[in-house]
Amino acid sequence: MSDIEVPESHPRYQSLLTRHRIEDGVEKGITSPQGLIAQGRGEAFDYLLGERTLPSVDRAERVAAAHLLRARHPVLSVNGNVAALVPDELITLAEATGADLEVNLFNRTEERIHAIVDHLREHGACEVKGTTADERIPGLDHERAKVDADGIYDADVVLVPLEDGDRAQALAEMGKTELVIDLNPLSRSPQTAAVPIIDNVIRALPNITTHARDLADASSDQLDDVIAGFDPETVLTETERAIRTGGD
Amino acid sequence: MSDIEVPESHPRYQSLLTRHRIEDGVEKGITSPQGLIAQGRGEAFDYLLGERTLPSVDRAERVAAAHLLRARHPVLSVNGNVAALVPDELITLAEATGADLEVNLFNRTEERIHAIVDHLREHGACEVKGTTADERIPGLDHERAKVDADGIYDADVVLVPLEDGDRAQALAEMGKTELVIDLNPLSRSPQTAAVPIIDNVIRALPNITTHARDLADASSDQLDDVIAGFDPETVLTETERAIRTGGD
Repeated sequence: MSDIEVPESHPRYQSLLTRHRIEDGVEKGITSPQGLIAQGRGEAFDYLLGERTLPSVDRAERVAAAHLLRARHPVLSVNGNVAALVPDELITLAEATGADLEVNLFNRTEERIHAIVDHLREHGACEVKGTTADERIPGLDHERAKVDADGIYDADVVLVPLEDGDRAQALAEMGKTELVIDLNPLSRSPQTAAVPIIDNVIRALPNITTHARDLADASSDQLDDVIAGFDPETVLTETERAIRTGGD
Repeated sequence: MSDIEVPESHPRYQSLLTRHRIEDGVEKGITSPQGLIAQGRGEAFDYLLGERTLPSVDRAERVAAAHLLRARHPVLSVNGNVAALVPDELITLAEATGADLEVNLFNRTEERIHAIVDHLREHGACEVKGTTADERIPGLDHERAKVDADGIYDADVVLVPLEDGDRAQALAEMGKTELVIDLNPLSRSPQTAAVPIIDNVIRALPNITTHARDLADASSDQLDDVIAGFDPETVLTETERAIRTGGD
């Protein structure tokens, strides 16, 4: 986390780091113009949210960790923004939960897929899926439907940060447990999710990893206890209220 | 307004048009990565605002029109996003108020300045300032301080859409009357402005033009009456409340 020449104590460190990484992502062909606009939308919601992880969201992140640990085949879906912003954090979470990493883009081009795979490998990822693209998610346009047969297609639990609504819905209709990270509680993807995580990926990923490490030795029953009684509506309602009123 | 193949009746026409123009702006070298992120931030605030011009904002737009008509030397400051999104609307407003157009960028490069000047000329602008850059706004870094001596430097009234806080403040300190269009009522530039216009530029510019045409034959006294009693705080408070609560 020290790729900019600003001390971590700087009040705008996080924001400057984010900006630097996103611009770096554009230079590397990882982040698309639409990805930059999405980043800006997220910044506005995060600003209104007070740039913090609310208690109900922290709970959702713990539940997400339990789902990933409990899964037969968990996959972390990676797009251009997430790859640019939190490459190390993605790899760490994949390691902590035994999840696969799969690059999956809204505006898919082979060039961007490979740029992102290379970027994750540079950051230490061993295996990155998403280049085979030998299966399709039912109900989506050709390019947007492409996934790996032994990746997202086979997964029972998928973490999709910053996903578009159509694909979030299509994945849910395949019966997968979806964990969605999105800063807008009113958008369709978190509303479709089994676990909506209304948080900045920069805070969410390390926190899910912390919970996963904390739960590493938990039994299946104990993980089920963490998951039981989780109400996605509570997170959506509380975060919308925080955004609207500025309170908790 | 028909540069995309979608009927104007389409429910998402405005949003698709915006997206198309911004992407076109990127291709032409007009819109910067930071401009795309700013666009996304604006989209989020506009979404929470209900994508409409509130009554207090319509009043601010009428006051802005009166200021432009009353000015000795009004200038419309043009950045990459505005040039990409509303080139025709900028030119029409300049004509309706006798204002100059001046390209003025936060991330200034000669290449982008010229790309934007060319873009505005393609859309029918005769004179576009911003290439001479023979004066400086006091109190800003070298590149960000550059303005034309016979443009923004000489102006008494400046319309700055989507301006950054430092420059908005520096312009205000030069004693200029600043009209700022920005969708975030909490950001520093509208808070510094004589007339904060919390609206999407796509709605704001045509509406200021409508008011300017309506006031075209007004006397100086009548224009002063429009301006008198305008309270910028009311706009900021009402728009923040609308964003927070979803109401008017």
